[in-house]
Amino acid sequence: MARRPISRSFSKKAPAASPGLRLFRLPGLPEIQRGDDLAAHIANAARKAGQQFENSDILVVAQKIVSKAEGALVQLTNVSPSPQAQAIALRQKKDPRLVEVILQESRRIVRTDPVLIAETHHGYVCANAGVDHSNVPGDDTVTILPRDPDRSAKNLAAALLKRARKRIAVIISDTFGRPWRLGLTNVAIGASGLPVLLDLRGTRDRHGKPLTATVLAVADELAAAAGLLMGKSEGSPVILIRGYRYKPSSELATRIIRPAAEDLFR
Amino acid sequence: MARRPISRSFSKKAPAASPGLRLFRLPGLPEIQRGDDLAAHIANAARKAGQQFENSDILVVAQKIVSKAEGALVQLTNVSPSPQAQAIALRQKKDPRLVEVILQESRRIVRTDPVLIAETHHGYVCANAGVDHSNVPGDDTVTILPRDPDRSAKNLAAALLKRARKRIAVIISDTFGRPWRLGLTNVAIGASGLPVLLDLRGTRDRHGKPLTATVLAVADELAAAAGLLMGKSEGSPVILIRGYRYKPSSELATRIIRPAAEDLFR
Repeated sequence: MARRPISRSFSKKAPAASPGLRLFRLPGLPEIQRGDDLAAHIANAARKAGQQFENSDILVVAQKIVSKAEGALVQLTNVSPSPQAQAIALRQKKDPRLVEVILQESRRIVRTDPVLIAETHHGYVCANAGVDHSNVPGDDTVTILPRDPDRSAKNLAAALLKRARKRIAVIISDTFGRPWRLGLTNVAIGASGLPVLLDLRGTRDRHGKPLTATVLAVADELAAAAGLLMGKSEGSPVILIRGYRYKPSSELATRIIRPAAEDLFR
Repeated sequence: MARRPISRSFSKKAPAASPGLRLFRLPGLPEIQRGDDLAAHIANAARKAGQQFENSDILVVAQKIVSKAEGALVQLTNVSPSPQAQAIALRQKKDPRLVEVILQESRRIVRTDPVLIAETHHGYVCANAGVDHSNVPGDDTVTILPRDPDRSAKNLAAALLKRARKRIAVIISDTFGRPWRLGLTNVAIGASGLPVLLDLRGTRDRHGKPLTATVLAVADELAAAAGLLMGKSEGSPVILIRGYRYKPSSELATRIIRPAAEDLFR
């Protein structure tokens, strides 16, 4: 990065054409069951897709299959809704047992109308505290977010290192909505092995001026990129990203949570 | 997509390994000047990078160079700050002329502390109404967002079609912050030729259950993916995305703006 003002044309200083970034689906995973060895399933899927893992590869794994492997599922038939859950369910025309699970997964309810937005015990703010019944077999089962998605990512990275002998970074992702923009984007809720926030403060722009307020949420951008191939119903919960240059890091995805003092909406 | 419940294992139904998604930098652009033909510069950069455009390619172009080409720059020496701008500038230790430009670019100030968050005339909510002085030559010049980024995208796509005879979708992007999560991500503020929101409602998950509330902000995910290669100071404001399957669309990026009635924070 330029440390002092440089001349107008960059043509001569342009980097050579890079191989760029590549993203691949690893299709063919079976329906994941509690206790399944995700690393084994992923390695198997990679082999069938003709992919050899390389050091610095990044795997983005949808939260849903991590929750299933970890048994982070709740049977609604076992749930007794509280009066608060019943009141919210009535207003929102939701299953009161589902609302009860959402309340149990939340440390703060941000708002209840028109949608239930909660802060999870991890600190993530999202609709329904991440409780979801899509892509779950049966009508009365919902998934909840993994208890510690950063640990899930770390465990999966360690298992892949052991199995494939490659240092592979892992992002656990989920699709979250945003306040001012419609639609969901895939974001990181767990990470292992790569930077979550890339702090460019202290570096300079191409005219040599210091860059202020420039911290890039690269784990979220990686998750978003993977989201383009995951779809929602296509059974592609594991995406391999290759060619993204990063320094190995032990940063946790929870680092991305805006501290309460900086939260613009408290 | 599955229209009825299907069996547990997807192994046999898995799609064949796809070529996946590829992203390339188109480096070597000169410093863009007012009136420059962006399509010509981009075609030239692609040629130098050894890339032949293909139908359905997607170009993600950083707002900064679009603003420069369109002359969307303001000389601060020509700006007289209003009393309101002076008051905000004093509290935030900012240049009152910069604050004045931000106010002029805003139709609503969402908050002023700790950062100035504004709703632009387009309806985008972001820090400083998109007014920025990084990557601009000179100390007293700032860029503002293009007046109509969707039109900028459409014009660029039309110019590329004429020049390269390929139907190329265009996203104009900028890096925005988010309320609950730290860091900036690259998002779409202009679009031409591709869907901005991908509505999966009415489709079913892999267990045959209808997917509710599943509208994916694919233009933002494409912009985020490109953001991984753009960096901030590396002079890579144009990223080519290849391999993303989409139906051509005339949807505008402004469609992504959450209507006031649905805005969770009004």
